[in-house]
Amino acid sequence: MTKIKRVLGLLPRLLAFGATLSATIVMATSHERVNILGFSFEAKYTDASALKFFVIANAIVSAYGLLVLFLPWESLLWRLVVALDAVFTVILTSSISAALAIAEVGKKGNSHAGWLPMCGQVPKYCDQVTGALAVGFIGLIIYVVLLLYSIYGALNPLLVLKF
Amino acid sequence: MTKIKRVLGLLPRLLAFGATLSATIVMATSHERVNILGFSFEAKYTDASALKFFVIANAIVSAYGLLVLFLPWESLLWRLVVALDAVFTVILTSSISAALAIAEVGKKGNSHAGWLPMCGQVPKYCDQVTGALAVGFIGLIIYVVLLLYSIYGALNPLLVLKF
Repeated sequence: MTKIKRVLGLLPRLLAFGATLSATIVMATSHERVNILGFSFEAKYTDASALKFFVIANAIVSAYGLLVLFLPWESLLWRLVVALDAVFTVILTSSISAALAIAEVGKKGNSHAGWLPMCGQVPKYCDQVTGALAVGFIGLIIYVVLLLYSIYGALNPLLVLKF
Repeated sequence: MTKIKRVLGLLPRLLAFGATLSATIVMATSHERVNILGFSFEAKYTDASALKFFVIANAIVSAYGLLVLFLPWESLLWRLVVALDAVFTVILTSSISAALAIAEVGKKGNSHAGWLPMCGQVPKYCDQVTGALAVGFIGLIIYVVLLLYSIYGALNPLLVLKF
């Protein structure tokens, strides 16, 4: 019974790992080459520093998520996981927000600054970036819920025993 | 002695409140009108949704920070503050990262997307946005440290008594 509970407890972490890893891969493979008025133009994630940051942050959080999955139940490091969850949630939030802000300009442009939208020219690239952001957002939501649950657990000594 | 300790404990929250409030005001008052080739052009924070989000998020966190300053010592709500700190830290991180991503494009432009930098035209506006981001970043750092300290305190029953 306790074993089932523990495995179920790891399920959100497994989902979060899957989400951040998918976000990394989908964003890192996003590129599209098009010809506009005879000029060949390639859009890829390395064009914007915010999207590069997204890939790096999601890769780091994926590595952390994988390590936590293999942490022994008896380890005292589980107490450190709450603090690490907080740090990695902040990093993930930062990368997704920055990428989302740039993606919004890419999709809608900004008439005040004279920045034109580019999704009309590279729709496949835009869809892939949108997909990566959506999956990354799912990962972030899971990490925020895990963090709040851990804080709640840490504040209630009876719940800590569950870990 | 305990009273001095408690007042000192509120000092980082007072600093964080000052930082988020300053960031809100500095960003919300950022605007510059210039004439370019006979056209009058005004740059202000409402031009970019990321900067509007920055003002709203910092205003909300300022209101929260002010309320916490007046929370009675004996209140059981202090236990909820750890979870609320986590939520507001995530909101603050999100708004600063999004604003920073847009500000970077405003300063350096993005040659791949054909987005031109605009700080050469409106330097005063750019300086004010940079100032708001810097002050907001200080507020964020304090909130992250407070959150990690709270988590550490919650995990160590002896430290909880300090609150």
